[in-house]
Amino acid sequence: MGLRDEIFEQPAVLRRLLRDGEAPVRAVAAALKKTPAQYVFLVARGTSDHAGLYGKYLWGMHEGLPTALATPSTFTLYERPPRLEGAWVIGISQSGQSPDLITVVEEAHRQGAPTVTITNDPSSPLAKAADLVIDVMAGSELAVAATKSYTAQLLSIAMLSVALSEDEERREAMQQLPEWIEETLKLDGPLGQAAQRYRYLDQCVVLGRGYNYATAFEWSLKMKELTYTMATPYSSADFRHGPIAVVAPGFPVLAVAPRGKVHDEIVELLTRLKNEHRAELVVLAQDEEALALAETPVPLPSDVPEWLTPLVAIVAAQLFTYHLTRAKGFDTEQPRGLSKVTKSR
Amino acid sequence: MGLRDEIFEQPAVLRRLLRDGEAPVRAVAAALKKTPAQYVFLVARGTSDHAGLYGKYLWGMHEGLPTALATPSTFTLYERPPRLEGAWVIGISQSGQSPDLITVVEEAHRQGAPTVTITNDPSSPLAKAADLVIDVMAGSELAVAATKSYTAQLLSIAMLSVALSEDEERREAMQQLPEWIEETLKLDGPLGQAAQRYRYLDQCVVLGRGYNYATAFEWSLKMKELTYTMATPYSSADFRHGPIAVVAPGFPVLAVAPRGKVHDEIVELLTRLKNEHRAELVVLAQDEEALALAETPVPLPSDVPEWLTPLVAIVAAQLFTYHLTRAKGFDTEQPRGLSKVTKSR
Repeated sequence: MGLRDEIFEQPAVLRRLLRDGEAPVRAVAAALKKTPAQYVFLVARGTSDHAGLYGKYLWGMHEGLPTALATPSTFTLYERPPRLEGAWVIGISQSGQSPDLITVVEEAHRQGAPTVTITNDPSSPLAKAADLVIDVMAGSELAVAATKSYTAQLLSIAMLSVALSEDEERREAMQQLPEWIEETLKLDGPLGQAAQRYRYLDQCVVLGRGYNYATAFEWSLKMKELTYTMATPYSSADFRHGPIAVVAPGFPVLAVAPRGKVHDEIVELLTRLKNEHRAELVVLAQDEEALALAETPVPLPSDVPEWLTPLVAIVAAQLFTYHLTRAKGFDTEQPRGLSKVTKSR
Repeated sequence: MGLRDEIFEQPAVLRRLLRDGEAPVRAVAAALKKTPAQYVFLVARGTSDHAGLYGKYLWGMHEGLPTALATPSTFTLYERPPRLEGAWVIGISQSGQSPDLITVVEEAHRQGAPTVTITNDPSSPLAKAADLVIDVMAGSELAVAATKSYTAQLLSIAMLSVALSEDEERREAMQQLPEWIEETLKLDGPLGQAAQRYRYLDQCVVLGRGYNYATAFEWSLKMKELTYTMATPYSSADFRHGPIAVVAPGFPVLAVAPRGKVHDEIVELLTRLKNEHRAELVVLAQDEEALALAETPVPLPSDVPEWLTPLVAIVAAQLFTYHLTRAKGFDTEQPRGLSKVTKSR
């Protein structure tokens, strides 16, 4: 089993989670509702933090709950944790082994806040530290770069939102995800070709907004971990003021621009990047208008509703990054300098 | 008046704010205390967002309040704002003109949350939208790259924390800031020399943790805005898992490593970057151990307490970036593609 297998395993992973995870996630939602919260206090690092960023938008818009990201050093190195009344505390970690996340969840539990761990290992210390556990059921993930555990975390977060709001329409829409991802995996051949053009790319930015702000972060991290290129994620709103200064002619901009509420804003920025800055654009999108702006257009399944596009877009981004890693002659299985479990203080 | 003048104006700006700002900030603190909060809901972009990140650590550790960063698109493009009961809503903006921030503060006010605007223009629309205003009194800022308004925002945030906790010891410490910054400005000559070495640098990472996580973000933004180099900020804790993969021999790492609780963790990482990865290190620090790791050591005044080091460290970073901009032959006053006021939707 390698990175490529794990990318291709995603439809099966999500199918299993939709089938076997619904009842447990509903139970977690029912337990949380007994202690209504004013906000979510989230603790996670790396890929899991990006999944949490998706949760921030979902829970904010559907459950009306703002999300505060924890600052683990204030719990560990500084030993001055904040008060957590009014919060649901949610920890996200593939392995559930990170000592600093465990410290945060333990402190939250000590303070009496309801705690939930979303993890791929329900017997891990982070799971044991929490009142409630959501098992993302991604199966053993061996590649150092996380792929299937990320989409399984995203789906768990979406399922928790749907269970909290008891929203049948959104529940129905989620059922189609495995098929949409199967359709996206058909981009494998075209992306293998397209990636060749970026053989000598050594830096880039990745733009997303709203639900896909998370995709910009996760795609950037995959680019850094696997292709060793300096990829930096931005909200299209932040990028246009300040950071856009780095864009000289030919500068590569990767972007996620699905249909929906943020489409026009990001397409306007991409148009400016193309016409005024002469940037090189790689665009994941559903409609002709956005795709036509790109040197490398990456068409996503056209009927995915915006709130679920992060689960589909990241699969295309994983394939792009996988093929670029190979084009650059790097090892997709053992990136240099990395290990699977994070052990920060 | 240009960028250089505004950098050198900072001791005078902070002296004025300490003198004339104390009574108004105390009044804001007293008003806020009438409606106790469970968390802070922060809305800001760019440099002001980095000032807010400093607030997140200060308010978290001294007032016990977690901070949730707003997602403006959920208020504007999606029109689905979260519920803000239990929050103090704080908007930060130099100009106070950004339409999306105004929308967030107006919605918070409509929901009945106490609202504060921290701004350099107390007659701006963002100030008018809030119940309470803190004027950072930085004077007119003409350079596109913000410098004195950032340190004035940091000091306003520190003064608000001190007023909320009625902490006389911290109040005393703040009074020395203008002198510490004067001492830091003496690095102008040495940094003018040191910057020459980085004439052809085109990418880098900037590391900080705890209070100086904000400094990493702000230094990175200055590097991008002025020198057009792809600078990416990281917490030293996040960087060691994943992003460290980009560090090949000679890769430039800028770091902020003052004395205090996070010192040992970041020095350990810098040691690894130097010995195992053979990175090129530029280190802002107070002690010999950290400075000795660097090709370019930047000594900060040794008696600044950790919680105030972000106000001093960023001044050294501004000087470094100013001289690098000139070494690269770029315009320090009119960076390409930028305007002063952010107008995101």
